[in-house]
Amino acid sequence: MAKLIRCKFCKNFPYIFLKEYRLYLCKEHFISWIENYVYEAIKEYKMFSHKDKILVCVSGGKDSIALVSILNSLGYKIYPFFIDLGIKNFSKTSLKVVYKVCQILNLPLYIYDIKGCLSYSIKEISKALKRSEFCSICGTLKRYIMEIAARYFKVDVIATGHNLNDETENLFLNVLNWKITYLARQGPVLKEEKGFKKKVKPLFKLREKYLYFYVKAKNLPFVEEKCPYSKGATRYIYRKVLNFLEENMPGCLLRFYLEFLRKAKPIFEKALDQESQKLHPCPKCFYPTSRKDKCLVCSYLEKTQKRFKN
Amino acid sequence: MAKLIRCKFCKNFPYIFLKEYRLYLCKEHFISWIENYVYEAIKEYKMFSHKDKILVCVSGGKDSIALVSILNSLGYKIYPFFIDLGIKNFSKTSLKVVYKVCQILNLPLYIYDIKGCLSYSIKEISKALKRSEFCSICGTLKRYIMEIAARYFKVDVIATGHNLNDETENLFLNVLNWKITYLARQGPVLKEEKGFKKKVKPLFKLREKYLYFYVKAKNLPFVEEKCPYSKGATRYIYRKVLNFLEENMPGCLLRFYLEFLRKAKPIFEKALDQESQKLHPCPKCFYPTSRKDKCLVCSYLEKTQKRFKN
Repeated sequence: MAKLIRCKFCKNFPYIFLKEYRLYLCKEHFISWIENYVYEAIKEYKMFSHKDKILVCVSGGKDSIALVSILNSLGYKIYPFFIDLGIKNFSKTSLKVVYKVCQILNLPLYIYDIKGCLSYSIKEISKALKRSEFCSICGTLKRYIMEIAARYFKVDVIATGHNLNDETENLFLNVLNWKITYLARQGPVLKEEKGFKKKVKPLFKLREKYLYFYVKAKNLPFVEEKCPYSKGATRYIYRKVLNFLEENMPGCLLRFYLEFLRKAKPIFEKALDQESQKLHPCPKCFYPTSRKDKCLVCSYLEKTQKRFKN
Repeated sequence: MAKLIRCKFCKNFPYIFLKEYRLYLCKEHFISWIENYVYEAIKEYKMFSHKDKILVCVSGGKDSIALVSILNSLGYKIYPFFIDLGIKNFSKTSLKVVYKVCQILNLPLYIYDIKGCLSYSIKEISKALKRSEFCSICGTLKRYIMEIAARYFKVDVIATGHNLNDETENLFLNVLNWKITYLARQGPVLKEEKGFKKKVKPLFKLREKYLYFYVKAKNLPFVEEKCPYSKGATRYIYRKVLNFLEENMPGCLLRFYLEFLRKAKPIFEKALDQESQKLHPCPKCFYPTSRKDKCLVCSYLEKTQKRFKN
């Protein structure tokens, strides 16, 4: 007689099967499994303690929504932080979703409006710079704003929702091109140094699929649509390759990443130590920079200003 | 009016299109392009000169047949060397093909018969060792025999037919598992050291597809069937992934490998230097080994002997 499959921890029907852990779990035990798994990662990689203030960057996508919810369930002191990129309807929808989630979780929400604070929208800045790599400019601005906000709120650490897929995709890209500087710095924890806040990725061991099912199980809303400006044909190729590897060798992505952290990253770090970058504060905004004069963002803004004056 | 596509160097119809080099070539110019390309790699990586004696390992597959033919065309002093593995019909067919090619190219052929020289066939040895990894035992024995033969013929260097696909597949496997020792040693040239002969891979920059077309263009026979014992499901996955990458980003495999050699390998080498392995000659056969007593092959043979006595 066929045996009915049950949750590993109770008699309920399973909500999900975690292939690489060979675990059947009901909805309730899946939620607590995920939260505990993240808790263990936070402890193992010394990300932060219950005393620390944590700026949590929330875009509205499943990963960052999951991050806010998990850290909240685990009782950490979190500051949910949303950057309004001013991108068509996308930013509006995202803000609504993030606002709703914070209401459900009874959390405050801190918002940074790029257009309001910097006088120009990302679209205007990238137009003024006559550059097509919208995503790269957006990334630079977001990192800058995260740092500024972290200082403003006097938090101890900045947390982002990067998952295992994001992380292995980056690792794969950096390996294919042997970007040694990036390989030396990539990881779930970036120490506080040279004027930059500590940055952590508590979800780095979890596949995006599981975060999707977590957010669904918690019944939280999230933004499913992608940013209308995101392109990334190359990204798509890497994603396909890594999914194919994971499908055929379950657990291989996590092993790839963890073994990188354990065996290869220290070697790259040591190699880079000898040619360490010197940073100094930007004379305009005090943001740490390796550039000779102003930091990248200040130079972006100056160029944009000039463009709009003419 | 549509323009007819012609060979880059003459008015003939093209035999092949080399996508990553954007080159259309007729049969004749394809042959000379390949041979010149290998010549440039031999010079650039200081593999050997026209004064050196080269043991060329020939299995009968397209790669090693191409290697013999190319090195012969380039006028090097080569010693084609075939190891008779004693595998069913496979070894017989292979020997016939290799013999035929050497006849066509007017070259001597040196043969090592495993069963005749070591008293046991590979099959018997792996049975005696009660191990299923036939390929790993076969690889160990082949490397051992190559070294023994190289000493016997007093050659300066051992050349094998590894192509770009083989090399990137190995690199990919070593990266996915972060095998630092292998990453430090992988490359087209392995220097003579600690009693081991210098080893080179003159075809490492060429995709297997091009070697196939080279052998076809030269009208040389080669063995198309795979060894009946070769398995490698994992290998198949890697192969598929790398082909997919190359198809979508032509030239990406060569870049991946060359950038590895230029930027990453030196870092791994340095990291490994600090824990360098000490080798000593095997007390039985004088083959260099890191093992405390006899070398791996001598211990294989001893175990096999014991097994067959009982």
